[in-house]
Amino acid sequence: MPNPGDKVQITTKKETVEGILMPSFDNNTIILKLETGYNIGFNKKDVAKITLIKKAQEEHKPISPISKNPDLPTIYILHTGGTIASKVDYRTGGVVASFSPEDLIKIFPELNSIANLHSELISKMWSDDLRFKHFTLIAEKIEAQIKKDVNGIIIGMGTDNLAVASAALSFIIEQTPIPILLVGSQRSSDRGSSDAALNLLSAAHLIAHSDFADVAICMHASEQDTDCYLLPATKTYKLHSSRRDAFQPVNTLALAKINYQTKSIQFLTKDYKKRSSLKPIIKPKMEEKVGLLKIHVNMVPEQFSFFEGYKGLIIEGTGLGHTPGQVPNPECEIHKKIYPAIKKLTQSGCVLVMTTQCLYGTVNMNVYDKGRDLLELGIISGEDMLANTALVKLSWLLGNYKPEEVKKLISQNLRGEINLKHQYDTEFVNIK
Amino acid sequence: MPNPGDKVQITTKKETVEGILMPSFDNNTIILKLETGYNIGFNKKDVAKITLIKKAQEEHKPISPISKNPDLPTIYILHTGGTIASKVDYRTGGVVASFSPEDLIKIFPELNSIANLHSELISKMWSDDLRFKHFTLIAEKIEAQIKKDVNGIIIGMGTDNLAVASAALSFIIEQTPIPILLVGSQRSSDRGSSDAALNLLSAAHLIAHSDFADVAICMHASEQDTDCYLLPATKTYKLHSSRRDAFQPVNTLALAKINYQTKSIQFLTKDYKKRSSLKPIIKPKMEEKVGLLKIHVNMVPEQFSFFEGYKGLIIEGTGLGHTPGQVPNPECEIHKKIYPAIKKLTQSGCVLVMTTQCLYGTVNMNVYDKGRDLLELGIISGEDMLANTALVKLSWLLGNYKPEEVKKLISQNLRGEINLKHQYDTEFVNIK
Repeated sequence: MPNPGDKVQITTKKETVEGILMPSFDNNTIILKLETGYNIGFNKKDVAKITLIKKAQEEHKPISPISKNPDLPTIYILHTGGTIASKVDYRTGGVVASFSPEDLIKIFPELNSIANLHSELISKMWSDDLRFKHFTLIAEKIEAQIKKDVNGIIIGMGTDNLAVASAALSFIIEQTPIPILLVGSQRSSDRGSSDAALNLLSAAHLIAHSDFADVAICMHASEQDTDCYLLPATKTYKLHSSRRDAFQPVNTLALAKINYQTKSIQFLTKDYKKRSSLKPIIKPKMEEKVGLLKIHVNMVPEQFSFFEGYKGLIIEGTGLGHTPGQVPNPECEIHKKIYPAIKKLTQSGCVLVMTTQCLYGTVNMNVYDKGRDLLELGIISGEDMLANTALVKLSWLLGNYKPEEVKKLISQNLRGEINLKHQYDTEFVNIK
Repeated sequence: MPNPGDKVQITTKKETVEGILMPSFDNNTIILKLETGYNIGFNKKDVAKITLIKKAQEEHKPISPISKNPDLPTIYILHTGGTIASKVDYRTGGVVASFSPEDLIKIFPELNSIANLHSELISKMWSDDLRFKHFTLIAEKIEAQIKKDVNGIIIGMGTDNLAVASAALSFIIEQTPIPILLVGSQRSSDRGSSDAALNLLSAAHLIAHSDFADVAICMHASEQDTDCYLLPATKTYKLHSSRRDAFQPVNTLALAKINYQTKSIQFLTKDYKKRSSLKPIIKPKMEEKVGLLKIHVNMVPEQFSFFEGYKGLIIEGTGLGHTPGQVPNPECEIHKKIYPAIKKLTQSGCVLVMTTQCLYGTVNMNVYDKGRDLLELGIISGEDMLANTALVKLSWLLGNYKPEEVKKLISQNLRGEINLKHQYDTEFVNIK
């Protein structure tokens, strides 16, 4: 039986496949790393034959960032934790974030032929634990690297809040001469179905072979392991809890499609920021006292009052941007207290911004009298911004601008977060 | 110039169309009601000619529910408010709910050839103002009508919380011998693009011509004004703030497609409840002290503590069902307090249920150590339930069962709200 690291040929009833044997996480599975970097898993009982092609020769030695190939660009990989570099924890049987960035390079040796790599582990955390201050921290690391003349930056991160982080970094990084791409993995790197390799290699390929220079996300374009999408930093949503193509543009389209196997990059828009010699402009401050409140049936006024003392609050309203609080017929004591609670908040100087839990479409508070009531209470329309994008934008604006400026800028498009072309009747983006 | 109510022929450069002239809401638009019940709007400057075909003759007289046609089934229309029967308020320029149910019948006279109609206005409220107690009220009205031997019930409602109401009614109405269909309208009835007519007529047609007998939603299947979907009461989401086909099944498929023009009803599943002579079983109690908390970056432990004293709380977590609270590296004082705040809630007897803000896909708290931590804190998986469905289910369970039963039943499929066939790798439903 060959050992992990050996090059082998596996024969099943259906196919014959060549690749590097990977460590398996159970006794029933054989995992092979294909030349594309993609891992493929076989059920052991389906494997008719394993043939050794080449013994591993001192494989997996750490790649030294010093052995620089002058013909290749330099990419800085900043690792923050999450599935993209996780391995199975044999103690608990689950997946934990534990690989170091060096391990990351070991798992994806193809990276070495795309670029000279630098890497850094700045935290080992699930993206669920991200706070505003972490965006500041990541942005400062990015700024330091841009000044070191790297050609692009890849940020490995857990997927749960990856789209939120990309939006935050998009506001913080007002100007960048190089691309800054967030990649994640919906499936652990040592699972046969992991999407980690394609996401990471596609991001590196885009950095090495295109003029794109902005903050964006690089994730699977479909369930197939062929294409990745370059997705807009402020208008992407994790729309499925486990699918590899969970990341979908909302109220807009993907920026580009990358096929790593055929080495093609197809931009789907001409409207993207390009490489330049401009100096980076980073405004890393985030205001901590900003919250988010999702509207639902049976709300109580105290859910608004909770945010007294906050400087900003995103409301994830219903439909075109509504909350309860109109006194219905028959009258209701609780409803009578909701609008006054909202008014008290806005009058205290807290900036209240309306978004919609419909996800697709835009807020429009001028259509119904309910919406106009809320405008009168001082709530500002968040237009077609995703609620989480509005949240980090509001925190960022309050960290860097005066309240009166914040109230104007929140409804203006700064980073593509408001799509003015997208109006009342715009089509759904087809998510299949 | 013909008057509203007259049958006319309108000629533009592109087409010639016949229909009943409707009252227009501005001076630039001419609205025509086609034979299908659909309203079509023309820009006045595009209209080359208007020819009077037939003067209105004593039109729009109220339809008396007493003039019963013994060959037609009887449908009870219960009106709660919302766009489905709203008209333009000329004072403010917006749309307000103000038509009585009799007006509804005036606007959609085709209803009279489908069924004998009874109607009742039980409230004039936007669905945004719905509270749990309103679901109880509506269910009691429904029960009374079922006992009067009507053949089906249509509930007209604002769309913002229509899918939430359908889920609540689905739990409350444990058994029904007749269909109970919720219909709404994304566009006001006197706008040229209104979807009210097709939704209402399709629902009535389904009641008159199928064996379906359950709670469900009837709304546009596409942007075209041709087909409606019959949608599952507990797994439908308003996925767009304004589109006519905003209502989409999530983690499942539509139940049927109804084409009112061709009078065809195509069931997409055999797995639906059929008409019977069974007595209705209504369990109308809802527990008031049930809340919903959406997870986002920068959460504070007090957002969990807020719900102390509540009997139930739905958490709309990230990804496979996560919250912040693992102490990251570097350590964070706020994170240290989140898990204890959650534990205090579960230990107080509050039932905490995890759903996912990804919308598509299922909660699976066994994949990552973070999920397993949350299970240990006493949070129960809501599987692939929509957060709002889980909210009304939990309120209903707590109103009717003992806490220990509630904790078991919340993860079990009672009304199609948990789709056991839908697992980790299930496809997105194609929303286009």
